[in-house]
Amino acid sequence: MRRAACNSSPLQALATKGSSPRHAVRGFSSSVRKLGASPFVNEPTKPVMHTSIPGPKSKAAIKKLDNVFDTRSLNMLVDYPKCNGNYVVDGDGNTLLDVFAQIASIPVGYNNPELAKVASSPAMVNAIINRPALGNFPSADWAEILETGILRAAPKGLDQVFTATTGSDANETAYKAAFIWRRTQERGGKDFSAEEIDSAMVNQAPGAPNYSILSFSRGFHGRLFGSLSTTHSKPIHKLDIPAFDWPTAPFPQLRYPLDQFAAENRAEEERCLAEFERIVSTFHNPVVAAVVEPIQSEGGDNHASLYFFQGLRRITKKHNVLLIIDEVQTGVGATGKFWAHEHWNLDSPPDMVTFSKKAQAAGFYYTDKSLRPDKPYRQFNTWMGDPARALLFRGIYNEIERHGLVEQAARVGKYLYGKLDALTQRYPNEIRNLRGKDRGTFLAWDSPRRDEIVRSAKAKGVNIGGSGESTIRLRPMLVFKEHHADILVDTLETIFKA
Amino acid sequence: MRRAACNSSPLQALATKGSSPRHAVRGFSSSVRKLGASPFVNEPTKPVMHTSIPGPKSKAAIKKLDNVFDTRSLNMLVDYPKCNGNYVVDGDGNTLLDVFAQIASIPVGYNNPELAKVASSPAMVNAIINRPALGNFPSADWAEILETGILRAAPKGLDQVFTATTGSDANETAYKAAFIWRRTQERGGKDFSAEEIDSAMVNQAPGAPNYSILSFSRGFHGRLFGSLSTTHSKPIHKLDIPAFDWPTAPFPQLRYPLDQFAAENRAEEERCLAEFERIVSTFHNPVVAAVVEPIQSEGGDNHASLYFFQGLRRITKKHNVLLIIDEVQTGVGATGKFWAHEHWNLDSPPDMVTFSKKAQAAGFYYTDKSLRPDKPYRQFNTWMGDPARALLFRGIYNEIERHGLVEQAARVGKYLYGKLDALTQRYPNEIRNLRGKDRGTFLAWDSPRRDEIVRSAKAKGVNIGGSGESTIRLRPMLVFKEHHADILVDTLETIFKA
Repeated sequence: MRRAACNSSPLQALATKGSSPRHAVRGFSSSVRKLGASPFVNEPTKPVMHTSIPGPKSKAAIKKLDNVFDTRSLNMLVDYPKCNGNYVVDGDGNTLLDVFAQIASIPVGYNNPELAKVASSPAMVNAIINRPALGNFPSADWAEILETGILRAAPKGLDQVFTATTGSDANETAYKAAFIWRRTQERGGKDFSAEEIDSAMVNQAPGAPNYSILSFSRGFHGRLFGSLSTTHSKPIHKLDIPAFDWPTAPFPQLRYPLDQFAAENRAEEERCLAEFERIVSTFHNPVVAAVVEPIQSEGGDNHASLYFFQGLRRITKKHNVLLIIDEVQTGVGATGKFWAHEHWNLDSPPDMVTFSKKAQAAGFYYTDKSLRPDKPYRQFNTWMGDPARALLFRGIYNEIERHGLVEQAARVGKYLYGKLDALTQRYPNEIRNLRGKDRGTFLAWDSPRRDEIVRSAKAKGVNIGGSGESTIRLRPMLVFKEHHADILVDTLETIFKA
Repeated sequence: MRRAACNSSPLQALATKGSSPRHAVRGFSSSVRKLGASPFVNEPTKPVMHTSIPGPKSKAAIKKLDNVFDTRSLNMLVDYPKCNGNYVVDGDGNTLLDVFAQIASIPVGYNNPELAKVASSPAMVNAIINRPALGNFPSADWAEILETGILRAAPKGLDQVFTATTGSDANETAYKAAFIWRRTQERGGKDFSAEEIDSAMVNQAPGAPNYSILSFSRGFHGRLFGSLSTTHSKPIHKLDIPAFDWPTAPFPQLRYPLDQFAAENRAEEERCLAEFERIVSTFHNPVVAAVVEPIQSEGGDNHASLYFFQGLRRITKKHNVLLIIDEVQTGVGATGKFWAHEHWNLDSPPDMVTFSKKAQAAGFYYTDKSLRPDKPYRQFNTWMGDPARALLFRGIYNEIERHGLVEQAARVGKYLYGKLDALTQRYPNEIRNLRGKDRGTFLAWDSPRRDEIVRSAKAKGVNIGGSGESTIRLRPMLVFKEHHADILVDTLETIFKA
């Protein structure tokens, strides 16, 4: 049952600590050009299907699982020790090419041997069994773990990090930082008033101010109470859950192909920017920050141009509003840059960038030390992240660097986009509004019979995800190569033909 | 630098899977009587101090860490691989008896050898490097991992679990379950209305209803936006952060010694129950659930009697309000029962019980399948907990069972309470309102010079935590024994004498 690489690899110290100074690796995605061999020696060469999914073994196991765990959202029961590279193996031994990758969160392939070394190192064992309360009792090597890992991956211009545990709490702690920053600025050095202290304790203004975070229609930023108040992807995510009275600005709805609708799309983005500025400057609950995804992922892979994002940066600067870029799904390489917002050539960096998923660790980057609250214990919790996951992220970063996986995602994405574009010519009713050109493998299109296509692909051994109302989104891992793209495209064509 | 037990133990499969059926181990805390030997072979016999804290090495490392990580809440820089059992070792080699235990979250001692085996097992390596999106792609053995671990620890009457990652999100997902449950009940089988769907997407009622979670004055339930709206421990936790208009009921303020103030305390609890019922039945934002800690931990170790908690259960049942017991800090044995609310002899179990900290995993237990939402994807997120932490909790549970650590906490707590009570007689100005009789080692008292006592104890090699305004709280691990209690009490007496 267990993967050979795990069983046979001895406990081994992590020998891959970064030696280069952090600042030297800024601009990582353009500076690293090593295109090494695949890390997987026995990766399957194609999907192999033995049964329909779920097969008999999976059905029995799902029935048992349902006694204690809600299985209605279950897609596939997975035998993780048997998975390898880009291939996922289900409970009946079916082997599928995985271009969904645990909702875009497996970075460098299943059972990556280098990550197995990190995970079985004494440092990892120590991190797991002695989990610290990081804010009070950080380990003596916490600075080194951050500097040789999470901070080497930091976007240009941001050199501080607040570690968290999930994408939702990465966003919520970033929002808290924004509220604290704004109110501290407004107090101008004065201490809290008695009225603020008393009212905060019972959830009332001015201590708990009626301030807000602006988000965009169709955006997704998480599902806890604060993050859900900024999420507008699907009603089922939000129904019955109380929400803050925070504003929503329109996100551009672009028309495809982009080159045929350049003027209309520019007008649409100008309309959205004007509405954004109007809300930022007039909303009844003052806006302290705007949060936006570089590509709205759960909401259906909605893109906007550099012009739009540059406009957001300009307008937020003008109105003393922070700009938070949510890179939970877009971050860590898949768009062909390490961070998707690096495509935008901003004049000044975002104020905060949040991450999770493929980082396998979570948190937010920032630069301005004024986003460190004026007093301790304002941004604090018991664990404040997880050194075990920070060690893993370091291993992931090293693996990305060693194999040039960001450049590979750019290259393979270009190849795959070309093949999909050609397929669009032949099956214009099957692939509509193909999106993600020059955004690596972060590709998507609208499909009039999306759920049927996803089901058929699974039956043929390719695991694909949907998003939004009718979107098929591709979220392969960073180890996805041209020959994997061929299998994906051939499978799609077989389905379209049938 | 590294602990021998980690370096020398070979990769080893977790050989301690529970074989007894889950229901047979209900009432765990009274049925397990094995009082085995200590799991630590070379645990220090006493504190050893080489320098003041922070010493020169720590000072240099803290200065470096502060460049990238806020260190103003830092208590001590720790050399985790050198820690052993109840002893924490700092960056200068100072060895302290730790009765704070990472804010009450280390369960069975630093570098516990059995946990080291779990952490270096192939199952753990697999869980770390192939982290699943559990709601979509659970592992084939997820039911077994839950049933032999997290669910064996389930409180009596609760047999379902929703896994999460931190105490805050355990509480927030429990709150979401409560809101969904109530609104589903109110719709009486009807589907969402168009008005609900449209309004939810823009954060307005009725889709995002103005319903509420009731919490108690001085309670602590986390620091994200929903959980923080139920937290009322200290202003610094809440200031400048927007909050929901949710109600606060008074938590009893008992007078000590309890036997001298029996009538006054009963009157106080009746006052609080009456006020609770008034708020539950009249608050303008309808109350769907009440959340309460068995012992208010961050708020200063505030206790209430069985009478009060039984009253909460009675009143919540009467008004169709759910009762959520937050056992994030009180759970997993330290009070002398596995769950603190098991002290209460409730007629019917709580609706949900949340856990984290010493479980090293997080989530909430519940029983009623109506707390499974009526549709999938309503309670959902990418990771939905962490199998790596579920494996660790299983190891923790096995270790607690093997050594009878719940009974040990009860026994050692009784011993320690007796010694502290005697100390109170001699130093009545130093120890006031001693609390936690018959609650294991979960002991606390008020100290007129709290911060000074905590500082002095640290200088003498005992790490103690505070809470509330002037409370000293003891939070030893479950491997804390009588001879550790002696060192603690002797150190306190030395300080009081000086």
